[in-house]
Amino acid sequence: MPDAPPSLFAASPAAGTADNSGSHPFDRAIRLTPLPDGNWRGHTSADYRNMVGPYGGITAATVLNAILQHPARLGDPVALTVNYAGPVQDGEFTIEVEILRTNRATQHWTLRLVQGPDRTPALSATAVTALRRPAWSGPELGMPVVPPADSFPREQIDLAGVPWTARYDMRFVRGALSLDPESAASDNSCTEVWMRDEPPRPIDLASLCSMCDGFFPRIFLRRPGFVPAGTVSMTVYFHADAQTLATQHEAPVLGVARAQVFAQGFFDQTAQVWGQGGTLLASSHQIVYYKE
Amino acid sequence: MPDAPPSLFAASPAAGTADNSGSHPFDRAIRLTPLPDGNWRGHTSADYRNMVGPYGGITAATVLNAILQHPARLGDPVALTVNYAGPVQDGEFTIEVEILRTNRATQHWTLRLVQGPDRTPALSATAVTALRRPAWSGPELGMPVVPPADSFPREQIDLAGVPWTARYDMRFVRGALSLDPESAASDNSCTEVWMRDEPPRPIDLASLCSMCDGFFPRIFLRRPGFVPAGTVSMTVYFHADAQTLATQHEAPVLGVARAQVFAQGFFDQTAQVWGQGGTLLASSHQIVYYKE
Repeated sequence: MPDAPPSLFAASPAAGTADNSGSHPFDRAIRLTPLPDGNWRGHTSADYRNMVGPYGGITAATVLNAILQHPARLGDPVALTVNYAGPVQDGEFTIEVEILRTNRATQHWTLRLVQGPDRTPALSATAVTALRRPAWSGPELGMPVVPPADSFPREQIDLAGVPWTARYDMRFVRGALSLDPESAASDNSCTEVWMRDEPPRPIDLASLCSMCDGFFPRIFLRRPGFVPAGTVSMTVYFHADAQTLATQHEAPVLGVARAQVFAQGFFDQTAQVWGQGGTLLASSHQIVYYKE
Repeated sequence: MPDAPPSLFAASPAAGTADNSGSHPFDRAIRLTPLPDGNWRGHTSADYRNMVGPYGGITAATVLNAILQHPARLGDPVALTVNYAGPVQDGEFTIEVEILRTNRATQHWTLRLVQGPDRTPALSATAVTALRRPAWSGPELGMPVVPPADSFPREQIDLAGVPWTARYDMRFVRGALSLDPESAASDNSCTEVWMRDEPPRPIDLASLCSMCDGFFPRIFLRRPGFVPAGTVSMTVYFHADAQTLATQHEAPVLGVARAQVFAQGFFDQTAQVWGQGGTLLASSHQIVYYKE
Protein backbone atom coordinates (compact mmCIF):
# COMPACT_ATOMS: atom_id res chain seq x y z
CA MET A 1 0.00 0.00 0.00
CA PRO A 2 1.48 3.35 -1.03
CA ASP A 3 2.50 5.64 1.76
CA ALA A 4 1.86 9.34 1.71
CA PRO A 5 4.71 11.38 0.27
CA PRO A 6 7.39 12.21 2.83
CA SER A 7 6.80 15.91 2.26
CA LEU A 8 3.69 15.62 4.40
CA PHE A 9 5.82 15.07 7.43
CA ALA A 10 8.15 17.95 6.85
CA ALA A 11 5.50 20.37 5.70
CA SER A 12 4.16 22.67 8.34
CA PRO A 13 1.76 24.98 6.54
CA ALA A 14 1.62 28.58 7.66
CA ALA A 15 -0.46 28.78 10.79
CA GLY A 16 -3.09 31.40 11.45
CA THR A 17 -4.93 31.17 8.17
CA ALA A 18 -8.34 29.63 8.52
CA ASP A 19 -9.57 27.50 5.68
CA ASN A 20 -13.01 26.07 5.98
CA SER A 21 -13.88 26.50 2.33
CA GLY A 22 -13.55 22.84 1.59
CA SER A 23 -9.93 22.84 0.48
CA HIS A 24 -8.62 22.01 3.94
CA PRO A 25 -7.23 18.47 4.06
CA PHE A 26 -9.84 17.58 6.68
CA ASP A 27 -12.71 18.70 4.47
CA ARG A 28 -11.27 16.83 1.51
CA ALA A 29 -10.87 13.70 3.64
CA ILE A 30 -14.47 13.57 4.86
CA ARG A 31 -16.02 14.67 1.58
CA LEU A 32 -18.95 12.53 0.45
CA THR A 33 -20.94 12.32 -2.76
CA PRO A 34 -24.61 11.37 -2.53
CA LEU A 35 -25.62 8.23 -4.39
CA PRO A 36 -29.04 7.73 -5.99
CA ASP A 37 -29.95 5.08 -3.39
CA GLY A 38 -29.55 7.49 -0.45
CA ASN A 39 -26.09 6.24 0.46
CA TRP A 40 -22.79 8.09 0.18
CA ARG A 41 -19.55 7.58 -1.68
CA GLY A 42 -16.22 8.59 -0.18
CA HIS A 43 -12.53 8.05 -0.74
CA THR A 44 -9.71 7.46 1.70
CA SER A 45 -7.27 10.30 2.17
CA ALA A 46 -3.49 9.98 2.03
CA ASP A 47 -3.32 12.94 4.43
CA TYR A 48 -4.92 10.98 7.26
CA ARG A 49 -3.37 7.60 6.68
CA ASN A 50 -2.46 5.56 9.75
CA MET A 51 -0.24 2.51 9.95
CA VAL A 52 -2.98 0.26 8.58
CA GLY A 53 -5.71 2.11 6.71
CA PRO A 54 -7.05 5.53 7.66
CA TYR A 55 -6.74 7.13 11.07
CA GLY A 56 -9.83 5.98 13.01
CA GLY A 57 -10.86 9.51 13.85
CA ILE A 58 -11.14 10.54 10.21
CA THR A 59 -13.25 7.47 9.48
CA ALA A 60 -15.56 8.28 12.38
CA ALA A 61 -15.83 11.88 11.18
CA THR A 62 -16.63 10.71 7.66
CA VAL A 63 -19.41 8.47 8.95
CA LEU A 64 -20.72 11.38 10.99
CA ASN A 65 -20.56 13.54 7.88
CA ALA A 66 -22.99 11.18 6.15
CA ILE A 67 -25.45 12.13 8.89
CA LEU A 68 -24.59 15.82 8.92
CA GLN A 69 -25.14 16.04 5.15
CA HIS A 70 -28.34 14.02 5.18
CA PRO A 71 -31.39 15.95 3.98
CA ALA A 72 -33.68 14.20 6.47
CA ARG A 73 -31.56 14.86 9.54
CA LEU A 74 -33.31 16.01 12.71
CA GLY A 75 -31.13 18.09 15.03
CA ASP A 76 -27.49 17.76 15.93
CA PRO A 77 -25.54 14.64 16.89
CA VAL A 78 -25.79 13.58 20.51
CA ALA A 79 -24.16 10.14 20.34
CA LEU A 80 -22.09 8.22 17.82
CA THR A 81 -20.71 4.71 18.22
CA VAL A 82 -18.31 3.38 15.62
CA ASN A 83 -17.17 -0.24 15.53
CA TYR A 84 -14.01 -0.91 13.56
CA ALA A 85 -14.77 -4.33 12.13
CA GLY A 86 -11.94 -4.65 9.64
CA PRO A 87 -9.33 -2.65 7.75
CA VAL A 88 -10.49 0.08 5.37
CA GLN A 89 -8.66 -0.43 2.10
CA ASP A 90 -7.19 2.55 0.27
CA GLY A 91 -9.66 3.83 -2.28
CA GLU A 92 -13.39 4.27 -2.57
CA PHE A 93 -15.94 3.26 0.02
CA THR A 94 -19.67 3.49 0.45
CA ILE A 95 -21.42 4.60 3.60
CA GLU A 96 -24.81 2.95 3.86
CA VAL A 97 -27.25 4.95 5.95
CA GLU A 98 -30.55 3.93 7.49
CA ILE A 99 -32.75 6.18 9.57
CA LEU A 100 -34.07 3.60 11.99
CA ARG A 101 -36.62 5.79 13.69
CA THR A 102 -37.53 9.47 13.90
CA ASN A 103 -39.24 10.65 17.06
CA ARG A 104 -40.47 14.12 17.96
CA ALA A 105 -37.08 15.30 19.21
CA THR A 106 -34.67 12.43 18.55
CA GLN A 107 -33.62 10.43 15.52
CA HIS A 108 -31.85 7.06 15.45
CA TRP A 109 -29.38 6.10 12.75
CA THR A 110 -27.59 2.91 11.76
CA LEU A 111 -24.72 3.02 9.32
CA ARG A 112 -22.02 0.88 7.84
CA LEU A 113 -18.99 1.47 5.71
CA VAL A 114 -18.58 -1.10 2.94
CA GLN A 115 -16.06 -1.62 0.17
CA GLY A 116 -15.68 -3.61 -3.00
CA PRO A 117 -18.08 -5.52 -5.20
CA ASP A 118 -19.11 -7.74 -2.28
CA ARG A 119 -19.84 -4.71 -0.10
CA THR A 120 -17.47 -6.03 2.53
CA PRO A 121 -18.27 -4.27 5.80
CA ALA A 122 -15.31 -2.54 7.43
CA LEU A 123 -17.28 -0.60 10.01
CA SER A 124 -20.68 -0.39 11.65
CA ALA A 125 -22.06 2.60 13.49
CA THR A 126 -25.09 3.87 15.29
CA ALA A 127 -25.94 7.46 16.07
CA VAL A 128 -28.54 9.60 17.72
CA THR A 129 -29.31 13.13 16.65
CA ALA A 130 -31.63 15.38 18.62
CA LEU A 131 -33.18 18.77 18.80
CA ARG A 132 -31.55 20.39 21.78
CA ARG A 133 -33.78 22.48 23.96
CA PRO A 134 -33.21 25.09 26.61
CA ALA A 135 -32.93 23.27 29.95
CA TRP A 136 -31.21 23.66 33.25
CA SER A 137 -27.56 23.05 32.45
CA GLY A 138 -24.51 22.70 34.59
CA PRO A 139 -21.04 21.27 34.52
CA GLU A 140 -19.95 18.66 36.98
CA LEU A 141 -16.46 17.68 36.00
CA GLY A 142 -14.19 20.73 35.84
CA MET A 143 -11.72 21.45 33.08
CA PRO A 144 -8.18 20.79 34.31
CA VAL A 145 -6.30 23.97 35.13
CA VAL A 146 -3.25 23.91 32.87
CA PRO A 147 -1.07 26.52 31.19
CA PRO A 148 -2.26 27.73 27.78
CA ALA A 149 -1.39 25.91 24.59
CA ASP A 150 1.32 28.34 23.52
CA SER A 151 3.27 27.55 26.72
CA PHE A 152 4.17 24.20 25.19
CA PRO A 153 6.17 23.32 22.10
CA ARG A 154 4.44 21.62 19.22
CA GLU A 155 5.12 17.90 19.36
CA GLN A 156 6.82 16.56 16.28
CA ILE A 157 5.50 13.05 15.83
CA ASP A 158 7.30 11.80 12.77
CA LEU A 159 6.41 8.21 12.15
CA ALA A 160 7.10 6.65 8.81
CA GLY A 161 3.87 5.88 7.01
CA VAL A 162 1.71 7.68 9.60
CA PRO A 163 0.87 11.05 8.06
CA TRP A 164 -2.24 11.77 10.12
CA THR A 165 -0.33 12.98 13.18
CA ALA A 166 1.02 15.89 11.12
CA ARG A 167 -2.57 16.98 10.51
CA TYR A 168 -2.83 18.03 14.14
CA ASP A 169 -0.97 20.59 16.15
CA MET A 170 -0.47 18.76 19.44
CA ARG A 171 1.07 20.30 22.54
CA PHE A 172 1.36 17.94 25.46
CA VAL A 173 0.78 19.17 28.99
CA ARG A 174 1.57 15.68 30.23
CA GLY A 175 1.57 12.12 29.00
CA ALA A 176 3.39 12.69 25.71
CA LEU A 177 4.05 9.81 23.38
CA SER A 178 7.22 7.87 23.90
CA LEU A 179 8.00 4.81 21.85
CA ASP A 180 11.49 4.53 23.25
CA PRO A 181 11.94 0.85 24.13
CA GLU A 182 14.25 1.96 26.95
CA SER A 183 11.59 4.19 28.50
CA ALA A 184 10.28 3.10 31.87
CA ALA A 185 6.82 1.61 32.26
CA SER A 186 4.47 4.03 33.98
CA ASP A 187 1.55 3.42 36.30
CA ASN A 188 -0.38 6.31 34.83
CA SER A 189 -1.79 6.49 31.31
CA CYS A 190 -3.22 10.00 31.54
CA THR A 191 -2.54 12.44 28.73
CA GLU A 192 -3.46 16.11 28.64
CA VAL A 193 -2.89 17.62 25.24
CA TRP A 194 -3.82 20.86 23.50
CA MET A 195 -4.81 20.12 19.94
CA ARG A 196 -6.16 21.76 16.82
CA ASP A 197 -6.25 20.98 13.14
CA GLU A 198 -3.12 21.71 11.14
CA PRO A 199 -3.46 24.04 9.31
CA PRO A 200 -5.93 25.75 11.63
CA ARG A 201 -9.58 25.21 10.85
CA PRO A 202 -12.64 26.35 12.82
CA ILE A 203 -13.79 23.39 14.88
CA ASP A 204 -17.12 21.81 13.98
CA LEU A 205 -18.95 18.61 14.84
CA ALA A 206 -17.01 16.51 12.35
CA SER A 207 -13.57 17.73 13.39
CA LEU A 208 -14.50 17.44 17.08
CA CYS A 209 -15.48 13.84 16.40
CA SER A 210 -12.16 13.16 14.75
CA MET A 211 -10.20 14.71 17.62
CA CYS A 212 -11.92 12.32 20.05
CA ASP A 213 -9.74 9.58 18.56
CA GLY A 214 -6.60 11.72 18.59
CA PHE A 215 -5.04 10.04 21.61
CA PHE A 216 -2.42 7.43 20.90
CA PRO A 217 -3.09 4.04 22.54
CA ARG A 218 -2.88 4.32 26.33
CA ILE A 219 -0.85 1.11 26.45
CA PHE A 220 2.06 3.10 24.98
CA LEU A 221 2.25 5.03 28.25
CA ARG A 222 1.93 2.06 30.53
CA ARG A 223 4.41 -0.19 28.72
CA PRO A 224 7.80 0.65 27.29
CA GLY A 225 8.23 0.73 23.53
CA PHE A 226 5.74 -0.02 20.82
CA VAL A 227 2.79 -2.33 21.47
CA PRO A 228 0.46 -3.35 18.62
CA ALA A 229 -2.96 -1.85 19.41
CA GLY A 230 -6.11 -0.80 17.61
CA THR A 231 -9.47 0.68 18.54
CA VAL A 232 -12.30 -1.84 18.36
CA SER A 233 -15.21 0.42 19.28
CA MET A 234 -15.47 4.14 20.03
CA THR A 235 -18.36 6.18 21.34
CA VAL A 236 -18.57 9.97 21.22
CA TYR A 237 -21.10 11.99 23.18
CA PHE A 238 -21.50 15.51 21.86
CA HIS A 239 -22.24 18.11 24.52
CA ALA A 240 -22.20 21.12 22.22
CA ASP A 241 -24.33 21.80 19.19
CA ALA A 242 -23.08 23.33 15.95
CA GLN A 243 -23.93 26.84 17.14
CA THR A 244 -21.97 26.48 20.38
CA LEU A 245 -19.01 24.98 18.53
CA ALA A 246 -18.98 27.90 16.11
CA THR A 247 -18.03 30.21 19.00
CA GLN A 248 -14.80 28.23 19.46
CA HIS A 249 -13.35 29.24 16.08
CA GLU A 250 -9.82 27.88 15.60
CA ALA A 251 -8.84 27.86 19.26
CA PRO A 252 -7.10 24.71 20.43
CA VAL A 253 -9.09 22.27 22.55
CA LEU A 254 -7.77 20.44 25.59
CA GLY A 255 -7.99 16.69 25.29
CA VAL A 256 -7.74 14.50 28.37
CA ALA A 257 -7.57 10.73 28.09
CA ARG A 258 -6.88 7.86 30.43
CA ALA A 259 -7.36 4.13 30.63
CA GLN A 260 -9.25 2.53 33.50
CA VAL A 261 -8.05 -1.05 33.10
CA PHE A 262 -5.88 -3.27 30.91
CA ALA A 263 -7.14 -6.85 30.92
CA GLN A 264 -6.59 -9.87 28.70
CA GLY A 265 -5.72 -7.95 25.57
CA PHE A 266 -8.23 -5.08 25.82
CA PHE A 267 -8.08 -1.74 27.56
CA ASP A 268 -10.63 1.03 27.80
CA GLN A 269 -10.08 4.74 27.39
CA THR A 270 -12.22 7.58 28.69
CA ALA A 271 -11.62 11.02 27.27
CA GLN A 272 -12.89 14.55 27.47
CA VAL A 273 -12.44 17.35 24.97
CA TRP A 274 -12.63 20.80 26.54
CA GLY A 275 -13.20 24.05 24.73
CA GLN A 276 -12.44 27.65 25.50
CA GLY A 277 -14.22 28.88 28.61
CA GLY A 278 -14.08 25.47 30.22
CA THR A 279 -16.91 24.02 28.15
CA LEU A 280 -16.98 20.23 27.84
CA LEU A 281 -17.49 19.85 24.10
CA ALA A 282 -17.44 16.06 23.96
CA SER A 283 -16.78 13.02 26.07
CA SER A 284 -15.58 9.86 24.41
CA HIS A 285 -14.91 6.28 25.27
CA GLN A 286 -13.24 3.46 23.47
CA ILE A 287 -12.15 -0.11 23.89
CA VAL A 288 -8.84 -1.00 22.36
CA TYR A 289 -7.21 -4.26 21.42
CA TYR A 290 -3.55 -4.66 22.36
CA LYS A 291 -1.00 -7.43 22.05
CA GLU A 292 1.70 -7.45 24.71
CA MET B 1 -50.62 0.23 30.46
CA PRO B 2 -51.17 -2.23 33.30
CA ASP B 3 -48.81 -1.89 36.24
CA ALA B 4 -47.23 -4.83 37.97
CA PRO B 5 -49.24 -6.13 40.93
CA PRO B 6 -48.47 -4.32 44.21
CA SER B 7 -47.35 -7.55 45.82
CA LEU B 8 -44.11 -7.27 43.84
CA PHE B 9 -43.11 -4.30 45.93
CA ALA B 10 -43.84 -5.83 49.28
CA ALA B 11 -42.32 -9.20 48.47
CA SER B 12 -38.74 -9.66 49.57
CA PRO B 13 -37.87 -13.25 48.76
CA ALA B 14 -35.72 -15.11 51.23
CA ALA B 15 -32.13 -14.13 50.64
CA GLY B 16 -29.22 -16.51 50.56
CA THR B 17 -30.64 -19.08 48.22
CA ALA B 18 -29.02 -19.07 44.85
CA ASP B 19 -31.20 -19.85 41.90
CA ASN B 20 -29.56 -19.97 38.52
CA SER B 21 -31.62 -22.85 37.21
CA GLY B 22 -33.65 -20.62 34.98
CA SER B 23 -36.49 -19.94 37.38
CA HIS B 24 -34.90 -16.75 38.70
CA PRO B 25 -36.89 -13.70 37.59
CA PHE B 26 -33.82 -12.43 35.75
CA ASP B 27 -33.46 -15.64 33.74
CA ARG B 28 -37.15 -15.62 32.91
CA ALA B 29 -36.95 -11.99 31.82
CA ILE B 30 -34.07 -12.46 29.37
CA ARG B 31 -35.27 -15.83 28.05
CA LEU B 32 -35.26 -16.11 24.26
CA THR B 33 -36.63 -18.67 21.84
CA PRO B 34 -34.78 -19.22 18.58
CA LEU B 35 -36.75 -18.56 15.42
CA PRO B 36 -36.23 -20.44 12.15
CA ASP B 37 -34.75 -17.34 10.50
CA GLY B 38 -31.92 -17.06 13.02
CA ASN B 39 -33.59 -14.36 15.06
CA TRP B 40 -34.96 -14.60 18.59
CA ARG B 41 -38.33 -14.19 20.23
CA GLY B 42 -38.70 -12.74 23.71
CA HIS B 43 -41.37 -11.36 25.99
CA THR B 44 -41.34 -8.40 28.34
CA SER B 45 -41.31 -9.22 32.04
CA ALA B 46 -43.61 -7.65 34.62
CA ASP B 47 -40.84 -8.18 37.19
CA TYR B 48 -38.55 -5.67 35.48
CA ARG B 49 -41.09 -3.10 34.42
CA ASN B 50 -40.05 0.54 34.61
CA MET B 51 -42.28 3.59 34.43
CA VAL B 52 -42.59 3.29 30.66
CA GLY B 53 -41.78 -0.14 29.28
CA PRO B 54 -39.08 -2.42 30.64
CA TYR B 55 -36.10 -1.31 32.71
CA GLY B 56 -33.38 -0.45 30.20
CA GLY B 57 -30.87 -2.79 31.82
CA ILE B 58 -33.04 -5.83 31.31
CA THR B 59 -33.55 -4.92 27.66
CA ALA B 60 -29.79 -4.55 27.18
CA ALA B 61 -29.22 -7.89 28.89
CA THR B 62 -31.83 -9.54 26.68
CA VAL B 63 -30.14 -8.21 23.56
CA LEU B 64 -26.82 -9.47 24.90
CA ASN B 65 -28.44 -12.82 25.56
CA ALA B 66 -29.24 -13.14 21.86
CA ILE B 67 -25.49 -13.02 21.30
CA LEU B 68 -24.58 -15.26 24.23
CA GLN B 69 -27.02 -17.92 23.01
CA HIS B 70 -25.95 -17.67 19.39
CA PRO B 71 -24.44 -20.88 17.99
CA ALA B 72 -21.95 -18.97 15.82
CA ARG B 73 -20.61 -16.75 18.59
CA LEU B 74 -16.84 -16.24 18.80
CA GLY B 75 -15.57 -15.45 22.28
CA ASP B 76 -17.04 -13.34 25.04
CA PRO B 77 -18.55 -9.86 24.80
CA VAL B 78 -16.10 -6.98 24.87
CA ALA B 79 -18.39 -4.09 23.93
CA LEU B 80 -22.13 -3.55 23.64
CA THR B 81 -23.89 -0.36 22.61
CA VAL B 82 -27.66 -0.15 22.93
CA ASN B 83 -29.69 2.74 21.53
CA TYR B 84 -33.15 3.13 22.96
CA ALA B 85 -35.05 4.36 19.93
CA GLY B 86 -38.61 4.08 21.21
CA PRO B 87 -40.73 2.50 23.91
CA VAL B 88 -40.85 -1.29 24.13
CA GLN B 89 -44.52 -2.29 24.37
CA ASP B 90 -45.59 -4.95 26.84
CA GLY B 91 -45.66 -8.32 25.15
CA GLU B 92 -43.63 -10.19 22.56
CA PHE B 93 -40.67 -8.81 20.69
CA THR B 94 -38.18 -10.09 18.14
CA ILE B 95 -34.45 -9.56 18.33
CA GLU B 96 -32.96 -9.50 14.85
CA VAL B 97 -29.32 -10.50 14.78
CA GLU B 98 -26.72 -10.05 12.09
CA ILE B 99 -23.12 -11.12 12.35
CA LEU B 100 -21.52 -8.32 10.40
CA ARG B 101 -18.04 -9.74 10.29
CA THR B 102 -16.00 -12.50 11.91
CA ASN B 103 -12.26 -12.01 12.16
CA ARG B 104 -9.66 -14.31 13.62
CA ALA B 105 -10.15 -13.12 17.19
CA THR B 106 -13.04 -10.64 17.05
CA GLN B 107 -16.62 -10.75 15.83
CA HIS B 108 -18.90 -7.79 15.07
CA TRP B 109 -22.64 -7.87 15.63
CA THR B 110 -25.55 -5.61 14.73
CA LEU B 111 -28.93 -6.14 16.34
CA ARG B 112 -32.31 -4.56 16.65
CA LEU B 113 -35.38 -5.18 18.73
CA VAL B 114 -38.61 -4.94 16.74
CA GLN B 115 -42.28 -5.37 17.61
CA GLY B 116 -45.59 -5.80 15.88
CA PRO B 117 -46.61 -6.71 12.35
CA ASP B 118 -44.66 -3.74 10.95
CA ARG B 119 -41.51 -4.78 12.81
CA THR B 120 -41.34 -1.36 14.44
CA PRO B 121 -37.82 -0.86 15.76
CA ALA B 122 -37.60 0.03 19.44
CA LEU B 123 -33.86 -0.46 19.81
CA SER B 124 -30.68 -0.84 17.82
CA ALA B 125 -27.46 -2.31 19.11
CA THR B 126 -23.95 -3.19 18.09
CA ALA B 127 -21.58 -5.52 19.86
CA VAL B 128 -18.10 -6.94 19.66
CA THR B 129 -17.18 -10.34 20.99
CA ALA B 130 -13.60 -11.54 21.15
CA LEU B 131 -11.36 -14.37 22.12
CA ARG B 132 -9.46 -13.06 25.10
CA ARG B 133 -5.83 -13.97 25.27
CA PRO B 134 -3.22 -13.94 27.98
CA ALA B 135 -1.54 -10.53 27.91
CA TRP B 136 0.11 -8.12 30.25
CA SER B 137 -2.75 -6.85 32.40
CA GLY B 138 -2.98 -4.18 35.01
CA PRO B 139 -5.47 -1.95 36.69
CA GLU B 140 -5.20 1.79 36.51
CA LEU B 141 -8.23 3.16 38.26
CA GLY B 142 -8.49 1.76 41.79
CA MET B 143 -11.66 0.46 43.39
CA PRO B 144 -12.95 2.98 45.94
CA VAL B 145 -12.24 1.95 49.51
CA VAL B 146 -15.63 1.72 51.16
CA PRO B 147 -17.13 -0.34 53.99
CA PRO B 148 -18.57 -3.72 52.97
CA ALA B 149 -22.11 -4.10 51.69
CA ASP B 150 -23.51 -5.44 54.95
CA SER B 151 -22.50 -2.22 56.71
CA PHE B 152 -25.37 -0.49 54.94
CA PRO B 153 -29.12 -1.05 55.10
CA ARG B 154 -30.92 -2.28 52.03
CA GLU B 155 -32.56 0.64 50.30
CA GLN B 156 -36.30 0.29 49.95
CA ILE B 157 -37.19 1.99 46.70
CA ASP B 158 -40.94 1.65 46.48
CA LEU B 159 -42.20 3.46 43.45
CA ALA B 160 -45.66 2.75 42.15
CA GLY B 161 -45.47 0.99 38.82
CA VAL B 162 -41.69 0.51 38.98
CA PRO B 163 -41.16 -3.10 40.05
CA TRP B 164 -37.61 -3.47 38.70
CA THR B 165 -35.96 -1.73 41.64
CA ALA B 166 -37.18 -4.53 43.92
CA ARG B 167 -35.22 -6.98 41.76
CA TYR B 168 -31.98 -5.56 43.13
CA ASP B 169 -30.57 -5.44 46.60
CA MET B 170 -29.06 -1.94 46.67
CA ARG B 171 -27.05 -0.54 49.54
CA PHE B 172 -25.90 3.01 49.05
CA VAL B 173 -22.50 4.12 50.26
CA ARG B 174 -23.29 7.61 49.00
CA GLY B 175 -25.52 9.32 46.51
CA ALA B 176 -28.77 7.56 47.38
CA LEU B 177 -31.94 8.37 45.50
CA SER B 178 -34.03 11.21 46.81
CA LEU B 179 -37.12 12.36 45.00
CA ASP B 180 -38.13 14.70 47.79
CA PRO B 181 -39.05 17.97 46.07
CA GLU B 182 -37.84 19.78 49.20
CA SER B 183 -34.38 18.21 48.98
CA ALA B 184 -31.55 20.56 48.19
CA ALA B 185 -29.89 20.58 44.78
CA SER B 186 -26.40 19.10 44.94
CA ASP B 187 -23.28 19.88 42.98
CA ASN B 188 -22.22 16.23 42.95
CA SER B 189 -24.00 13.43 41.11
CA CYS B 190 -21.74 10.60 42.27
CA THR B 191 -23.32 7.41 43.56
CA GLU B 192 -21.52 4.47 45.13
CA VAL B 193 -23.82 1.52 45.62
CA TRP B 194 -23.41 -2.12 46.50
CA MET B 195 -25.78 -4.18 44.40
CA ARG B 196 -26.75 -7.73 43.63
CA ASP B 197 -29.74 -9.51 42.15
CA GLU B 198 -32.69 -10.08 44.43
CA PRO B 199 -33.04 -12.96 45.15
CA PRO B 200 -29.30 -13.64 44.97
CA ARG B 201 -28.03 -15.08 41.69
CA PRO B 202 -24.45 -15.78 40.61
CA ILE B 203 -23.37 -12.87 38.44
CA ASP B 204 -22.77 -13.55 34.76
CA LEU B 205 -22.27 -11.47 31.64
CA ALA B 206 -25.99 -10.84 31.17
CA SER B 207 -26.67 -9.77 34.75
CA LEU B 208 -23.51 -7.64 34.80
CA CYS B 209 -24.79 -5.91 31.68
CA SER B 210 -28.12 -5.23 33.32
CA MET B 211 -26.50 -3.82 36.46
CA CYS B 212 -24.62 -1.29 34.32
CA ASP B 213 -27.94 0.49 33.88
CA GLY B 214 -28.88 0.18 37.54
CA PHE B 215 -28.10 3.78 38.43
CA PHE B 216 -31.06 6.13 38.59
CA PRO B 217 -30.71 9.25 36.43
CA ARG B 218 -27.91 11.47 37.72
CA ILE B 219 -30.13 14.52 37.27
CA PHE B 220 -32.11 13.30 40.30
CA LEU B 221 -29.06 14.05 42.46
CA ARG B 222 -28.29 17.41 40.96
CA ARG B 223 -31.85 18.78 40.96
CA PRO B 224 -34.50 18.54 43.65
CA GLY B 225 -37.52 16.35 43.06
CA PHE B 226 -38.41 14.26 40.06
CA VAL B 227 -37.14 15.20 36.60
CA PRO B 228 -38.32 13.28 33.51
CA ALA B 229 -35.29 11.48 32.10
CA GLY B 230 -34.49 8.48 29.94
CA THR B 231 -31.39 6.78 28.58
CA VAL B 232 -30.87 7.39 24.88
CA SER B 233 -27.73 5.31 24.34
CA MET B 234 -25.68 3.08 26.63
CA THR B 235 -22.34 1.41 26.06
CA VAL B 236 -20.92 -1.39 28.20
CA TYR B 237 -17.29 -2.50 28.05
CA PHE B 238 -16.77 -5.91 29.59
CA HIS B 239 -13.43 -6.37 31.32
CA ALA B 240 -14.05 -9.87 32.63
CA ASP B 241 -14.88 -12.99 30.70
CA ALA B 242 -17.43 -15.60 31.77
CA GLN B 243 -14.78 -17.61 33.58
CA THR B 244 -13.59 -14.63 35.65
CA LEU B 245 -17.15 -13.65 36.46
CA ALA B 246 -17.91 -17.15 37.70
CA THR B 247 -15.43 -16.64 40.53
CA GLN B 248 -17.60 -13.78 41.83
CA HIS B 249 -20.55 -16.04 42.69
CA GLU B 250 -23.38 -14.12 44.35
CA ALA B 251 -21.21 -11.47 45.99
CA PRO B 252 -22.46 -7.90 45.65
CA VAL B 253 -20.67 -5.63 43.20
CA LEU B 254 -19.81 -2.01 43.83
CA GLY B 255 -21.29 0.34 41.26
CA VAL B 256 -19.93 3.85 40.89
CA ALA B 257 -21.62 6.38 38.61
CA ARG B 258 -21.32 10.07 37.95
CA ALA B 259 -22.27 12.63 35.35
CA GLN B 260 -19.68 14.81 33.66
CA VAL B 261 -21.95 17.49 32.26
CA PHE B 262 -25.60 18.48 31.95
CA ALA B 263 -26.21 20.51 28.81
CA GLN B 264 -29.29 21.45 26.80
CA GLY B 265 -31.40 18.49 27.85
CA PHE B 266 -28.77 15.74 27.79
CA PHE B 267 -26.31 14.55 30.39
CA ASP B 268 -23.72 11.83 30.27
CA GLN B 269 -22.95 9.19 32.87
CA THR B 270 -19.76 7.23 33.35
CA ALA B 271 -19.87 4.18 35.56
CA GLN B 272 -17.72 1.38 36.85
CA VAL B 273 -18.81 -1.96 38.28
CA TRP B 274 -16.27 -3.44 40.67
CA GLY B 275 -16.11 -7.05 41.80
CA GLN B 276 -14.61 -8.80 44.78
CA GLY B 277 -10.86 -8.39 44.98
CA GLY B 278 -10.99 -4.95 43.38
CA THR B 279 -11.51 -6.27 39.85
CA LEU B 280 -13.08 -3.85 37.40
CA LEU B 281 -15.73 -6.08 35.84
CA ALA B 282 -17.25 -3.52 33.50
CA SER B 283 -17.17 0.15 32.64
CA SER B 284 -20.23 1.75 31.18
CA HIS B 285 -21.28 5.03 29.69
CA GLN B 286 -24.59 6.50 28.73
CA ILE B 287 -26.20 9.65 27.44
CA VAL B 288 -29.51 10.54 28.97
CA TYR B 289 -32.31 12.84 27.94
CA TYR B 290 -33.81 15.04 30.66
CA LYS B 291 -36.46 17.71 30.79
CA GLU B 292 -35.99 20.36 33.45
